[in-house]
Amino acid sequence: MTTPTDTPHILRSNDQEQQRLHNEIQRMGAMAAAQIDAAIDVVHRRDDKAADRVIANDDAIDELELQISNDVMRLALRGPLAGDLRVILAALRIASDIERVGDYAANLAKRSKSLNQVPPMPHTHGLDALARLASQLVRDALRAYDTLDVELAEQVRERDGELDQLHTSLFRELLTYMMEDPRSITPCTHLLFMAKNLERIGDHATNIAENVIFRVKGEDKLPPRDKRDDTSTTSGVG
Amino acid sequence: MTTPTDTPHILRSNDQEQQRLHNEIQRMGAMAAAQIDAAIDVVHRRDDKAADRVIANDDAIDELELQISNDVMRLALRGPLAGDLRVILAALRIASDIERVGDYAANLAKRSKSLNQVPPMPHTHGLDALARLASQLVRDALRAYDTLDVELAEQVRERDGELDQLHTSLFRELLTYMMEDPRSITPCTHLLFMAKNLERIGDHATNIAENVIFRVKGEDKLPPRDKRDDTSTTSGVG
Repeated sequence: MTTPTDTPHILRSNDQEQQRLHNEIQRMGAMAAAQIDAAIDVVHRRDDKAADRVIANDDAIDELELQISNDVMRLALRGPLAGDLRVILAALRIASDIERVGDYAANLAKRSKSLNQVPPMPHTHGLDALARLASQLVRDALRAYDTLDVELAEQVRERDGELDQLHTSLFRELLTYMMEDPRSITPCTHLLFMAKNLERIGDHATNIAENVIFRVKGEDKLPPRDKRDDTSTTSGVG
Repeated sequence: MTTPTDTPHILRSNDQEQQRLHNEIQRMGAMAAAQIDAAIDVVHRRDDKAADRVIANDDAIDELELQISNDVMRLALRGPLAGDLRVILAALRIASDIERVGDYAANLAKRSKSLNQVPPMPHTHGLDALARLASQLVRDALRAYDTLDVELAEQVRERDGELDQLHTSLFRELLTYMMEDPRSITPCTHLLFMAKNLERIGDHATNIAENVIFRVKGEDKLPPRDKRDDTSTTSGVG
C-alpha cells in the first residue's frame, strides 16, 4: 500500500514529473560538463588533491543517473503516458551518455596524477583545444535537448568531426615526441589516453544530439556522420 | 489505428513477449562474445578482409540493441506489467552493455589492420590471454542472466579483477618494449589501446553481472569491487 506520505511524488501530475525529470537531466549534464573543465584545470595546476575531488564528484553523477533511470521508468509505468516511447527512450539514453561523459572526465583527473610525477610536459597544452571543444559540444547538445532544437543538434554532430581532427593531429604529434625521446613514453601514453577520452566525450555529445533528433523526428537510424578520426587505422606519423 | 496485421505482436501474451525478448538479448550477447573471438582471430591471421567482416558485423548488434530497447519499452508501456521495474531496467542496461562489448570487439578488428602494415609482433600473443578471459566473462555474465544465477554473477565480478591484472602487466610490458625499440612505438600504441578495449569488455561483463544481481535482489548499489587495474595511475614500468 502506498500513502501520500511515503510517496508524495505520486500526487504530482505527469507534466510536473516530466518537468522535474527534465530539470534533473539538465542538472546532471551541467555537472558532467563542469567536470570536463575541472579535469583539464587540474591537469595544468598539477594538483593531486584537486584531482581527487574531481574523481570523487563523479559518484554524484553516477547516483543521479540511477535515480533518473528509476524515475523515468516509474513515470513510464504509471499508466497512460503523457509523452510517448520516444520521450522515455531519449531520456534514458541521454542520462546514460551524460554518465559516461562524467566517467571520462574522472579518468582525465585520474591520469593527471600520473603526469604530476614527471616534469611538466608541453603537450598537456595540446589537450586544451580538445577539452574546450568537447565541453562545448556537451553543453550545446544539452541545450539542444532542453529546447528540442534539431538544428543545433545537427551542428553538434557536424562539429564532432572537428574534435576528431584535433585528436588525430595530437595523437600523431605525441607519437613523434615519443620516438624522439623514449623517456617521454610513459607520460605520453597517459596523454594519448587522455586525448582519446576527450574524443570519446565528443562521441557521447553526438549521441545526445542524435537522441534529440530521434525524440523530435522519431528517426532512430541517422546517416553516418563524416568520421574524421583515423587514429585507430594510423600506421605512421607522416 | 492498429490492426492484427500490422502489429501481430500485440496479440502475444506478456509472458510470450518477455520470453521472446529474453531470447533476443541472449542472441545479441552470443553475437558480441563471438565477435571478441573473431577479432582476436583476425589479429593473428593478419587478414584485412576478415577484419572488415568483423567490423561490418557490428552493425547487426547495434540494430538489435535499438530493436530490443524499443521492444522492452513497448512491453513496459503496454499496461499492467508482468514483471516490474527491475526486469525492464535490467534488460535495457544489459542490452546497452552488450552493444558496447560489440563496439570494442569491432575496434580490435579495426586496429588489427594497422598492425598488418608492420612485421608481426610477439606482443600480439600477449592479447590472447586477455581476450580469452574477456570473452569468458561475457559468456558467464550472459549465462548468469539467462538463469538468474546470482552466485555466477558474483564470480564474474570477482574474476574481472584477474583481467585487470593481466591488462596491467601487458601494459607495462608494452611500455618497456617501446622504450627499448622506438620503431615499435606506433604498433605498440595500437596494442595498448587493444589491451584497454579488452579490459573495458571485462567492465561491461561486470555491469551485466551487477544487473543480474540488481534484477534478482533489487540492490542497485553494490560495494565497490577490488579494482586491480592501476594502469591509469602507473608512472613507471617497474
